[in-house]
This record gives sequence, structure tokens and C-alpha cells, in this order.
Amino acid sequence: MHRWTFYFLASLAAMPLAAAELPPKASVADVIKASQSAEWRALDPDSTLYMELPAGRVVIELAPAFAPKHVDNVRALVRDGYFDGLAILRAQDNFVVQWGDPDEASPRPLKTAKAKLDGEFTVPLKTVRQFTRLPDRDGYAPQVGHSNGFPSARDPKSGQAWLAHCYGMVGVGRDVGADSGNGGALYAVIGQAPRQLDRNITVVGRVVDGMPLLAVMPRGPGAMGFYEDPAQRVAIRSVKLASDVPEAQRSRLEVMRTDSASFRAVAEAARNRGGPWTKVAAGHIDLCNVPIPVRPAGT
Amino acid sequence: MHRWTFYFLASLAAMPLAAAELPPKASVADVIKASQSAEWRALDPDSTLYMELPAGRVVIELAPAFAPKHVDNVRALVRDGYFDGLAILRAQDNFVVQWGDPDEASPRPLKTAKAKLDGEFTVPLKTVRQFTRLPDRDGYAPQVGHSNGFPSARDPKSGQAWLAHCYGMVGVGRDVGADSGNGGALYAVIGQAPRQLDRNITVVGRVVDGMPLLAVMPRGPGAMGFYEDPAQRVAIRSVKLASDVPEAQRSRLEVMRTDSASFRAVAEAARNRGGPWTKVAAGHIDLCNVPIPVRPAGT
Repeated sequence: MHRWTFYFLASLAAMPLAAAELPPKASVADVIKASQSAEWRALDPDSTLYMELPAGRVVIELAPAFAPKHVDNVRALVRDGYFDGLAILRAQDNFVVQWGDPDEASPRPLKTAKAKLDGEFTVPLKTVRQFTRLPDRDGYAPQVGHSNGFPSARDPKSGQAWLAHCYGMVGVGRDVGADSGNGGALYAVIGQAPRQLDRNITVVGRVVDGMPLLAVMPRGPGAMGFYEDPAQRVAIRSVKLASDVPEAQRSRLEVMRTDSASFRAVAEAARNRGGPWTKVAAGHIDLCNVPIPVRPAGT
Repeated sequence: MHRWTFYFLASLAAMPLAAAELPPKASVADVIKASQSAEWRALDPDSTLYMELPAGRVVIELAPAFAPKHVDNVRALVRDGYFDGLAILRAQDNFVVQWGDPDEASPRPLKTAKAKLDGEFTVPLKTVRQFTRLPDRDGYAPQVGHSNGFPSARDPKSGQAWLAHCYGMVGVGRDVGADSGNGGALYAVIGQAPRQLDRNITVVGRVVDGMPLLAVMPRGPGAMGFYEDPAQRVAIRSVKLASDVPEAQRSRLEVMRTDSASFRAVAEAARNRGGPWTKVAAGHIDLCNVPIPVRPAGT
């Protein structure tokens, strides 16, 4: 190498990165636009919940592969009308919004649902067949990626897999006992991913539409964001399985398949953004920063 | 070692971690309670902004060590009353709330503040003396930790340091040009840390009180969460420097020193929680999950 060339490269390397202009590149929106229809899937109506709030509908996709017993129990609760007329109980800033039965003195009786279930904090890795691993390193788990649309983590050493507490993930509130949750108290993550909850709580699904309705709930003044005054609580009109709702009233959404080439391209577009706005590409993406695209069906 | 002991240990190792009970341990709240008063600091009134919204006050601590020119310009804007009567312009779910001048056609004129400033995306590492490094690995930067109360990152190779886009961090909106921001459009992070913005934007501070007021802003219906209808915008009554507010009307807050032993204990309490509720300690904490305690002064 000619010594002048070397000096030139050496001085380039010493320049702040921001001085170099990044070439333009496909954005996440570009990748979505260029994707094939086969790279999208409809939601399974038997694994989709509609929570109807005064402000609109929240759509939750359940994850039976990761929490089969809890998903069955949530289905039973929902079919029994358990949540209808209950309320948002708690909104803790940068953490969770939780809903369920506000009446601790005389709680709503269960009908067909079980009162207690063993925690499904992790599942055997071999039961979760689909896993698109992210190349990016993670501080909380040896491997992270996506399984059928859900951010998840795995540990080949323990042979276990689990869902990751990213924004919008829905978990089962519990007391101290690992078997003290039944799905009658659920929460959604509304802030920085509380990944310390991973493997400590049963995660049953993900909000695929309507997060803005939950995320803006006024933060409760009580400890852990609980509303102390019943008047502060937003009422839940109903929670139904999509399959129990007439087809014309269903939300027609589709989710990008996380085992598709376009999904990998979405992650890459977010990991290494192009210019001209972006000056320095991150070269990394956190599991919980990977967008999982959702759109109206037939877009 | 006796072979039965070996078998016992081997079978313990093969058990799911959740089966073992974690011993109790000091929580973050316990550490705060046990901290010494010398481990807390008052906010510098010359580097503290009060943004008065109809719902209450948002307190922002400015970070002159990381963005000296922008902090000076924000001080000039604030002293000129630039933000008084302006509005929250945008709330994008899981991303940012932004405020500034809604009137693009005839923008509010600047008085003593500069219209353009070179981006202060990074600063020379040697200018940021205080850095309490986290032992936890990070995907976005070679080193992460805290500098005088701010989550920050460093790269010894490039010799640069920068503020990290965690929940509540306040940045300077800009157009495509790296020099197109002046502090007249500011935003706060309200979701999963958008660390891809690190080194791409000038970060000027952190919301130390009042995040719940910003985080619940109704998400805007327009692209990027902009409010299309002026009636949707929340008005800003005023933004003032604390030093320009009579002492009796100041928020008397103190922040835990991030170079204190108690702060390291806070991080450890969050990294490895004790039982009985927690069944598996994470063994890791993300930079943006480390709580930076703030409390009323004289607690």
C-alpha cells in the first residue's frame, strides 16, 4: 500500500464517524412495502383476544406454544365473560398497565377456569420449533430471536425457551407463589423492557393493535401505580375471543411472519439505518427494538 | 467427593432454576432507605428546566458536560420565553413526545438564541470526568455507565463519550443536517430505549420528575405521531430555568449520586433480585433499566 494512501485511511479512521455520510438504504417501511403477501399471516381467531375499552379495541395475540395451560385458562375466563365489566387497576410509569378484578373483598367467582396453575415461566426448547435467531448479542439470555411472531429467548444449556418482556407483551400477574396466577390479572408492558421478569412470570401473548390505548392510561397515584379511587379506573366493556365475535366485527389484521426473509430485512433495516438522516448506523439491534410489523389484511 | 453427593449436586444442576428458592435480598427501595445523605445531590438551578403543562410540572436536568453549546442555547431560548405558549406537537407510541413551535409558516422568531448549531452528538471522552461503569455488557457501545446522573456510553477507541437514549432522556429534534437543530424542538423518550439515535442526535438532558405527564399524551394520529388538528395539542404554559423561579416555587428534588456506593448497590439490587417473589435473578441489567433515584429533598 502506498504510504499516502495509508495516511489517508488512517486519518479517516481517526475522524469522528459522524463526518462520513451514510449511503441511503431501504428503511423498515420500504421493506414492508416490498414484502410478499406470503410473508404475512392472519391472526388465529381462537388465539386472539379483543379487549373493548371506552377508547377502542386492544387486540392481543395469545401464545399457546409458550403457555398452553394459561392460554387455555384465559380462553375459559374470556368465554365465561370474566373480564366484562372489570377494570384497568394499575398503570405504573415505564413499567406496566394491569387489569382484572378490583374487588378483593368479594372477588368475581370463577366458572370453568382454574383458580391456580403451575407457572409456565419457561418451556422445553424442543417444543418451540420455529425460532429465527437474531445475530445480535443480548445481556439477559444466551440466544434471542423470534418464534412465530413473539420475541423470545433460549438457553441451549438448560434446554429452555421463554417469551421476552418487550413493549406490548402480556403477562399473568401473580403473588409470591409461582402457582398463584391464573390469568384473571393480566398486564401489558408500557415502558423499557423489564427483562428481569423473564422466567419469573408466565407470558401469554402480545398486544398487536391498540397499545396507544393502554400506554396513555393515567399513571395511578398509589404504590406500584394502583388507582386508589375507584373513579380513576377505566372500565373494561368486554374481553372476547375473536372466534366468538361475528366475522364482520373482527379486526382484520395480519402480522409479518418472523421466519420470512422480509422480517430479517426489517431487523437489518433497523440495525443499520442508511443516510441521509442517520449519520452513524448502530450496527446492533436490541431484541425489543425489532419492529414486528402488523397491518390491515389485504393491504 | 462422595458419589452420592455428586449425584445430588448433578441433579440439582439439572433442575429448572425456578425450583430453587432465592434468598431474600435488599431491594432498590431498601438501598435507597439505607443510603447516606451525602450520596444525594441537589439539582443545579441553572441547569434545571421547569416545563409547566396544564397537568403539572415536568422537571428536566440539563447535561452541559455532554452538550455545552446546546444547553447554552436552550437556556437562551428559555430566558427569552421562547417555549411559553408553544405546544406538545407529537406523541409517537413507544418512541417520543416532542414539543416546540407548531407554526411552520410563521415560526416564532429567535431573540438571543442561535438558529443553528453544530451537532454535539458525542464529546471527547476526556471532557467527561465522572463515569461509573456498569459491568454489564451492552450491544450498542463498548462501555456503558453513568456520568453525573446521566446514562452514557463510551468508546475508548474513538475517544468519544455520549448520552444514551434511555426512557426520559431529552434530545434536540433536527432535520437532515447534523447542524439543523437548535433546541427549539425538544423530545423526551417514552418507550423502549431508541438507542439507534445515540450519536445521531444531541441529547441535552433527562426528565427527573413528571415523566407520567408526558408519557400519557394521546398518541397523535398523523405520521410519526404528529397532531394534525391544532385542538389536539396540549399547550405549554411556560418553560423556565429553576434559577429564574422564586425559591419558594422551586421543586426541591435530589438525585442519587451515580458515583456513590448506594447507586452501585441500586444497580446490583435490580440486576440480581432476591426472593421470595423473584424466582430467577436476571444476573444482568441493561443500562436503561438501572433506576436513577430521585426524591424530595430532605427526605
